Amino acid sequence: MSKESLFIRACRGEQVERTPIWVMRQAGRYLPEYNEVRGKTTFLGLCKTPELAAQVTMQPIERFGLDAAIIFSDILIPVEAMGARLVFDEGPSLPEPVRDASAVDRLVVPDPISTMPFVLEAIRTFRSEMPDTPLIGFAGAPFTLAAYLIEGGGSQSYHQAKRFMYEAPKTVRALLHKLALTVAAHLSAQIDAGAQAVQIFDSWAGYLSPSDYRDFALPFTIQVIEAVAPKGVPIIVFAKGVHACLSELAMSGAHVLGVDWTMPLNVAGQLTEGRVVLQGNLDPCVLLGPKARIEREVQRILNEAKGLRGHIFNLGHGILKWTDPEHLGFLVDSVKRNGVVRVPKDL
Amino acid sequence: MSKESLFIRACRGEQVERTPIWVMRQAGRYLPEYNEVRGKTTFLGLCKTPELAAQVTMQPIERFGLDAAIIFSDILIPVEAMGARLVFDEGPSLPEPVRDASAVDRLVVPDPISTMPFVLEAIRTFRSEMPDTPLIGFAGAPFTLAAYLIEGGGSQSYHQAKRFMYEAPKTVRALLHKLALTVAAHLSAQIDAGAQAVQIFDSWAGYLSPSDYRDFALPFTIQVIEAVAPKGVPIIVFAKGVHACLSELAMSGAHVLGVDWTMPLNVAGQLTEGRVVLQGNLDPCVLLGPKARIEREVQRILNEAKGLRGHIFNLGHGILKWTDPEHLGFLVDSVKRNGVVRVPKDL
Repeated sequence: MSKESLFIRACRGEQVERTPIWVMRQAGRYLPEYNEVRGKTTFLGLCKTPELAAQVTMQPIERFGLDAAIIFSDILIPVEAMGARLVFDEGPSLPEPVRDASAVDRLVVPDPISTMPFVLEAIRTFRSEMPDTPLIGFAGAPFTLAAYLIEGGGSQSYHQAKRFMYEAPKTVRALLHKLALTVAAHLSAQIDAGAQAVQIFDSWAGYLSPSDYRDFALPFTIQVIEAVAPKGVPIIVFAKGVHACLSELAMSGAHVLGVDWTMPLNVAGQLTEGRVVLQGNLDPCVLLGPKARIEREVQRILNEAKGLRGHIFNLGHGILKWTDPEHLGFLVDSVKRNGVVRVPKDL
Repeated sequence: MSKESLFIRACRGEQVERTPIWVMRQAGRYLPEYNEVRGKTTFLGLCKTPELAAQVTMQPIERFGLDAAIIFSDILIPVEAMGARLVFDEGPSLPEPVRDASAVDRLVVPDPISTMPFVLEAIRTFRSEMPDTPLIGFAGAPFTLAAYLIEGGGSQSYHQAKRFMYEAPKTVRALLHKLALTVAAHLSAQIDAGAQAVQIFDSWAGYLSPSDYRDFALPFTIQVIEAVAPKGVPIIVFAKGVHACLSELAMSGAHVLGVDWTMPLNVAGQLTEGRVVLQGNLDPCVLLGPKARIEREVQRILNEAKGLRGHIFNLGHGILKWTDPEHLGFLVDSVKRNGVVRVPKDL
């Protein structure tokens, strides 16, 4: 048996003794101990103070015994390093949206070591304090970061981003290319600092039509994957809401694809034809309901995952701030109790 | 050849001389003449003044020559008639959310003729002024209306609605049953007043997992369809974001299914196996781009629709308020120029 952790072996599609579990946004506002640390500083201050970022990264591991940690940071940190002004109030905003060629030209491809050393230091701190828990590094996908930059924040329609795509496709591709270089360098630096897997979040790709996804999102995600692949760690892509192009995404070189809760894992398995391990996909809202419901949904999802090449349990989106931590504890126990044993096929 | 309009014949899956087109929210804020009428009163005042509601319903037909009109109203009108307090500021809000059994008990199943006479009068006015343009009546689907009632307005996660579903499924089903009775009576009254087709909007169903959609949405949409079907007019269901259950929805008794822009029409056609006509599915944001892009997307969509049982061109969601009306005019012309001729198969 490999000496690697359960999580990493599952990412590689190896036979494992049970389904591993981690949870997107597991270091977050639903946790009282997170809010205590968060109260000491601003959100960006927390991201940029390695000992605090490492501390909140460890909190859910200590409390719940999750099978992987994900470094605490924000997907807009590299965008700030590119020269965009970033403000956090209720949510993130970029007060100077990028909407013409000169704004794209002004953005630089930053050196991650000199511009985002705090992320790398937080990774090193976590690794030295929790050597037995695999750590995931992460970044936003180029399209999602471009959408933030063009909109100047979140959006309900991403119509500014799309308008810019339709009016000036070459300029938007230049932006996406810069973002792909930035993200690839940022992920590579995280791996060099000790991250044992990476996840690329394409949070807004589901707003695109399949043809726009193929034009403006997938090629730049592939550019990142190809640049990071030689590092040899598992690459997870979570493109929320991307259903029609899941089969194409399965050929991107990613080892694991995240699936949101609106597509059953067996359907995703058929679309991806055993090319990738799947990660997901409990509706985060289920954790707001009673434990009997959580247990039932865990069994349903594990059942839908039985025929897959491999499965990592997760939510289908980030955990909600209204979640009772005890319910996440129950979920972890339930997955550990019910998790599927994958016996090597040649036995 | 039938004396019925192009649109109605297309809804019935008959062979038609070209693809018809109408656009969701075609009477809306992107139109200067709409804003002029809207400026005379409040949003609810506009809904409740039959001559004004009929007037704004006619405006896009006069300007663009669309193949169908949809009566101007709001999906929360029947919810107000059930006894919920309804307020419109920027968007709709229900200041007394329904979150327990007694709140469900207090809601009544209203008589549409006495509580919503203005909708029926607007329909009669439109029919007498524009007898040659088919008119669509509409209502929200029970799940979407329940989600509004439980949340107290729109939401980014619908976590209150889902929490209530998980904690008190019987109470939520009682609410959904009352809503289904209300919606069925409201649609039937619209048909009696002259609506020649009806559309059921399940705007938030895409937030549900497939298993929750099967539990809390689909059965109540079917209840409405079964109650309205004897009236004999085409029934369109637009369940935005419902991909995994599209094949089941195709067996609901609906004649036409709306498809959002994230699923190609040929894929939707495979899933629905020729059981229904499909309606859609241009990304509304494309209308913000240049005309060459609009033309290209029209040709792509018409091409994807070629093998379908029938196709009605529409957007994949409501038109955006930032749309240049001239671009909608270009879209209509483009569909009329490029629209597919469907020759009867036995010729």
